[in-house]
Amino acid sequence: MIVELISVGTEILTGNITNTNVVYLARKCAALGLDCYYQDTVGNQEEHLKKTIQLALTRSDIIILVGGLGFTAKDITKETVSEILNEKLIEDVTSLQINERYFQTCGVQMKEVNYKKAMSFEHSYILNNENGIIPGYIVEKDAKRIILLPESSRELVTIFENGVTPYLKKLGIGATYTKIIKVCGLGEKMVEETLIDMVKDSPKLRVTTDVRAGEVHIHITAHAEKKKNAKELAEPVIQTLKKKFGKNIYATKEEETLEAVCYKLLLKNHLTVTAAESCTGGLLAGRLINIPGVSTVMHASFVTYSDEEKHKILGVKKSTLKEYTAVSKKVAKEMAIGAAQAAHADIALSVTGIAGPDGGTEQIPIGTVYIGCYIQGKVYVKKYCFSGNRARVRECAVTEALILLRSCILKKMKER
Amino acid sequence: MIVELISVGTEILTGNITNTNVVYLARKCAALGLDCYYQDTVGNQEEHLKKTIQLALTRSDIIILVGGLGFTAKDITKETVSEILNEKLIEDVTSLQINERYFQTCGVQMKEVNYKKAMSFEHSYILNNENGIIPGYIVEKDAKRIILLPESSRELVTIFENGVTPYLKKLGIGATYTKIIKVCGLGEKMVEETLIDMVKDSPKLRVTTDVRAGEVHIHITAHAEKKKNAKELAEPVIQTLKKKFGKNIYATKEEETLEAVCYKLLLKNHLTVTAAESCTGGLLAGRLINIPGVSTVMHASFVTYSDEEKHKILGVKKSTLKEYTAVSKKVAKEMAIGAAQAAHADIALSVTGIAGPDGGTEQIPIGTVYIGCYIQGKVYVKKYCFSGNRARVRECAVTEALILLRSCILKKMKER
Repeated sequence: MIVELISVGTEILTGNITNTNVVYLARKCAALGLDCYYQDTVGNQEEHLKKTIQLALTRSDIIILVGGLGFTAKDITKETVSEILNEKLIEDVTSLQINERYFQTCGVQMKEVNYKKAMSFEHSYILNNENGIIPGYIVEKDAKRIILLPESSRELVTIFENGVTPYLKKLGIGATYTKIIKVCGLGEKMVEETLIDMVKDSPKLRVTTDVRAGEVHIHITAHAEKKKNAKELAEPVIQTLKKKFGKNIYATKEEETLEAVCYKLLLKNHLTVTAAESCTGGLLAGRLINIPGVSTVMHASFVTYSDEEKHKILGVKKSTLKEYTAVSKKVAKEMAIGAAQAAHADIALSVTGIAGPDGGTEQIPIGTVYIGCYIQGKVYVKKYCFSGNRARVRECAVTEALILLRSCILKKMKER
Repeated sequence: MIVELISVGTEILTGNITNTNVVYLARKCAALGLDCYYQDTVGNQEEHLKKTIQLALTRSDIIILVGGLGFTAKDITKETVSEILNEKLIEDVTSLQINERYFQTCGVQMKEVNYKKAMSFEHSYILNNENGIIPGYIVEKDAKRIILLPESSRELVTIFENGVTPYLKKLGIGATYTKIIKVCGLGEKMVEETLIDMVKDSPKLRVTTDVRAGEVHIHITAHAEKKKNAKELAEPVIQTLKKKFGKNIYATKEEETLEAVCYKLLLKNHLTVTAAESCTGGLLAGRLINIPGVSTVMHASFVTYSDEEKHKILGVKKSTLKEYTAVSKKVAKEMAIGAAQAAHADIALSVTGIAGPDGGTEQIPIGTVYIGCYIQGKVYVKKYCFSGNRARVRECAVTEALILLRSCILKKMKER
């Protein structure tokens, strides 16, 4: 079955917001086994919306409309769908009561536009919104299904999980098997070149990549009548990829982030970690602390941006700073040793580099970053040259620090 | 003039990547005074792309196509445009040489698909790509303009800035005046309700909002024949907004982020800052260090995730931690004082809270965060209750800490 996603919002057309709703919906629909050939965005003009819905009805089975149901926008999505499908809008008593209660709580007078929000289609499923007052709707007409959702992400997700997913599952759209393989420590181009020679894209079996700073996520999606068959279709590809990328694969589950993998390795080996950050300035610690429960393996961390503080907090020798400058292998090494001592940690990561836009020299150009890893008496330091702006250099450095952390722990484990 | 943006990529349809290219292009086109009514996304199927381009040609003047020129994808965009416009593809010697050189450097054999990348339209402008080997193209036909760009963001941005922008400016698309007003410390709903009563959306004058954690960005875009007239159109709205939101406006320029505003205030008043972070774990320092040159006002910062380290590094009393627990006004206060001493800073921000998903109690539910600001002998502590998941609670806490920092400095300045 074919799904089409239509986003309604002038803010998207003018680039004032990033349309993350469509990313969420696209992923969910793909996982449910729906094919998607088109995604459209239109503004708050009724005429444009009308044409887009009419076209979608000719080429897709399920149309998901997001937005244009909002508080401060006109209620154009409901009105346009009503007109196209010749499906009357009637007063919905439950919605009206929810609206009135909300406005009372806010101490605001309900306006005409707000009364409109409480209208519903004569024949439709109303999808309960636990996080807000605008419900979702499903309207069925001539074997086509139109689903209307509010644009607030929090509300949209709740309605989709609780209302739309069970509805779509009942339609018998077959089964889908999805797998993710997350690869780190290899060039993006190398991963992509390997893939293009290996798998041919087909509607039954899709292999797509999502390239991020320092890592590549490979998504494998197989579709068949039954889950068992879909899995069988995907299995050979998965095995080949596992063989090809070996220990560079750090995770095979969506929720397993690089930091989560590091956390698990630390926990398993009863190790604690700390960080001493210069150019990344807290982002490395911030990323590790993404993990709930990280307090068992990480108690403290340091941002030492100035030379003075590198000396005072981490004990980096003044002579080392003078002789080699802050962005050097030696300083990265002393930072790591000093941080481990200051935080009484088994492992300490250190990051020192030039993120730009200024401060580069011919010897040490912008993008040069040294990352150190102290682990139980030994220190490894690697030099990196990242390209891109300040934000990208810092992001790459954080990812590479985690990759180094992972490989150092794995190495230690092997030595035992 | 009307522009339409078409993104080509199966990875977008399956939700594996977020389409940030379209956000960039939409914003740029709006700033150039182009109207955009439709944005479309299609996969790598030639038939779908063909239909989409044909439709776009009937309703828009300029069509910008992104993707489908990539290394590992088929070269469908160029081939489809060639077919629709009846515009032959010919070998482009310059592109071919660039390609061959690139492949030599990589030590990889050029394949047939790579040779295709070096084909160009018989009549087109070739837009130089300084960051890669795939150029952009502009093809003109029957008063319509089709612009083809590669999907790599870094390459796309360079080509757009250097090649597309000057081309579009020459088309005489009128003038646009844009202004941003960034508001913090007010509820989103309050800002939006104010706006809906104030401005009516029109093609000549658009007011849109971009709601973020703790802040709202209001975009005002006016369009007229001449820049002067566009500015006159926008001015009354800008003045009303300034009056309405007063000191809650922290910036009126795109590049002025909250952290940049704080940095400027610190610099102007010769103040240094540090942070002591628990639940935000480095993200606050990380955000301040976004600013190039921040080293003049921030030398060090601390992540103290465990009670033990709060005591050891920041000198928070063990008795305070025991009596009030780590998530309390008292501890936030002692953290701020301790951080200021440890880093010899004039100002210290402290953040302690429960980001979830576990650890909440009836007295201190998930989302409770205390933020402290020590400033030259005085400490202010505020309590916040954020909703949402762990990532959102942490993001809100970071923003509110910066808002508190800004208001504390402004207060100090007033007292003088």
